[in-house]
Amino acid sequence: MAHLITVELTKEKKSKPAADKLGFGKYYTDHMFIMNYEEAKGGWHSPRVVPYQPISLDPAAKILHYGQSVFEGMKAYRTLDGQIQLFRPQKNWERLNKSHARLCMPPVDEDLAMEALERLILVDQDWIPEEQGTSLYVRPFVFATEPLLGVASSKEYLFIIILSPVGAYYAEGINPVTIHVESEFVRAVAGGVGNAKTAGNYAAAMKAQELAAGKGFTQVLWLDGVHRKYIEEVGSMNVFFMIDGKVVTPALNGSILEGITRDSVMQLLRHWNVPVEERTISIDELYEANRNGTLQEAFGTGTAAVISPIGELNWNNEKLVIGGGRTGQLTSRIYDTLTGIQNGNVEDPFGWAVKLGG
Amino acid sequence: MAHLITVELTKEKKSKPAADKLGFGKYYTDHMFIMNYEEAKGGWHSPRVVPYQPISLDPAAKILHYGQSVFEGMKAYRTLDGQIQLFRPQKNWERLNKSHARLCMPPVDEDLAMEALERLILVDQDWIPEEQGTSLYVRPFVFATEPLLGVASSKEYLFIIILSPVGAYYAEGINPVTIHVESEFVRAVAGGVGNAKTAGNYAAAMKAQELAAGKGFTQVLWLDGVHRKYIEEVGSMNVFFMIDGKVVTPALNGSILEGITRDSVMQLLRHWNVPVEERTISIDELYEANRNGTLQEAFGTGTAAVISPIGELNWNNEKLVIGGGRTGQLTSRIYDTLTGIQNGNVEDPFGWAVKLGG
Repeated sequence: MAHLITVELTKEKKSKPAADKLGFGKYYTDHMFIMNYEEAKGGWHSPRVVPYQPISLDPAAKILHYGQSVFEGMKAYRTLDGQIQLFRPQKNWERLNKSHARLCMPPVDEDLAMEALERLILVDQDWIPEEQGTSLYVRPFVFATEPLLGVASSKEYLFIIILSPVGAYYAEGINPVTIHVESEFVRAVAGGVGNAKTAGNYAAAMKAQELAAGKGFTQVLWLDGVHRKYIEEVGSMNVFFMIDGKVVTPALNGSILEGITRDSVMQLLRHWNVPVEERTISIDELYEANRNGTLQEAFGTGTAAVISPIGELNWNNEKLVIGGGRTGQLTSRIYDTLTGIQNGNVEDPFGWAVKLGG
Repeated sequence: MAHLITVELTKEKKSKPAADKLGFGKYYTDHMFIMNYEEAKGGWHSPRVVPYQPISLDPAAKILHYGQSVFEGMKAYRTLDGQIQLFRPQKNWERLNKSHARLCMPPVDEDLAMEALERLILVDQDWIPEEQGTSLYVRPFVFATEPLLGVASSKEYLFIIILSPVGAYYAEGINPVTIHVESEFVRAVAGGVGNAKTAGNYAAAMKAQELAAGKGFTQVLWLDGVHRKYIEEVGSMNVFFMIDGKVVTPALNGSILEGITRDSVMQLLRHWNVPVEERTISIDELYEANRNGTLQEAFGTGTAAVISPIGELNWNNEKLVIGGGRTGQLTSRIYDTLTGIQNGNVEDPFGWAVKLGG
């Protein structure tokens, strides 16, 4: 289906950073995609690729006061044979619209979003880094712009996609991280917006993360806000544990995000005939499994890090070391397979890879 | 203490709306206050009053992705003898900084904020409406601007104050509102950010409000996210009930906002020797009190509406009418006294009114 996406090319291309200086979300490409929503003009209009540029917002724009916003994250890879591919992008557009519904925001045409992304990436394809572990991070985001201070959903929005060449998420490679199990702060609770990818969830999580980092831990493990004992997420990732040969991850309970990497890991495990369960997992169960020697591996999953092995939990001053603090065998296999499928180096039996410009 | 606040006056003054067209947060004055925070430049700098104008933001600015933001609300009044006064503004600056601490944002100098506000209001004092029920609404807000996509607190912020002439909050006067008691959605939970005045809380609350409005109710009464039975807030207001001659309001439990109107109402009641208690209140207790005839009055409190009488609760299809659906005697007395102190028509034994430019 053809949409009228206009393209205005930049007159001044930026210089590209060296692959070893990329980091995460520090550099942006030459162009961006932008589209307006105005209820008074019939909805979404003026989809366009334009030079990367500042946005002009009225100081009363609702995003600045009432936080109505949704974002997504995905990665584009340059394959060895020179093609460009994305990983399950349709899932991101589906989730974007689920988040929109929760935040009282108007849905986006998923085909148009996909076409917009393809146009933008093709325009900026020279920015896709090719070194091991690098990719072009894609950040679609939508936010409220109507300049009214009444607390009600906005009648005007911007949908924007920006691109950022990124290095490996953890500079040191996929070494296991140390985790602080959070007892004071809560990320989200069922009935809230924890299952939507909205800005406020991330702002709310920063305090615990900063305090944990100050104590030398890499990330926070979130417990549920009701019983304060069931595992929710780790940092901004979903989390998996291998206990006695079986892989478990918290069930979607209304307060955790429905991760696309989470879903892919479960499909991969089933494909390998590794038993996997979605269910409630208490922090006590993990400590008990550790005591009886059945807690074998643990890892977080998310678009940015893909797979992040967990080496250590710390809960009420009791340290729990997982797998001798080394990356588990299954964790490594998942990481290698998923990143391999993502960058086109490993066969994709699931049809997850989507080639662009084909 | 003298701060170097510069003032740039507009060359083109806007025309002012008629008093009966004001509404809430629809019109803005000719000027705004703005100040930058950059960690790399030693913190807050360049405080200035400038013509009201759009803000330029990088598309990667953290507010648009991770929601780090705090706001406040207060009102300025023109008294009958021509003076300008605010209501307990120091409490707003204190709360702003409490919210900042929760959101990992750098504190603002409260004296500077107060001086900035005074300068701005004096520049735009012609905008203070004088009709009954009108005022100049003051909106200070602070948000993250650093253009980095890593999830971590920003090292750059903007602090802005805008002013909006507003009419009476409820166009129909202070008639009692009808309330939907919310059983599905949750506003906040202890350990989260419900006690901070941050954007994400308001985005999270919109869905329930829209659904309730669709059923013909004015506002939502929020229950706690853990037991789903204790009263939290009503809409974005604190809430009070008069039961058997005693006034009760939910205790500050970590998930509700510490309202300045809430505190003022409690002080006023104590001044009048009306018993007032901060404690947990279950929805069952309200229905039970209604059955035995002791539920006498109910009202919400907040800066925008000041006092909003509640005429009716609806919980699981069971309607509870309070005080025959009419505004209670005590509720009216509180409203008249508080708004009288705020606009300078009633004696202020508390020292709450702060005159500007004196």
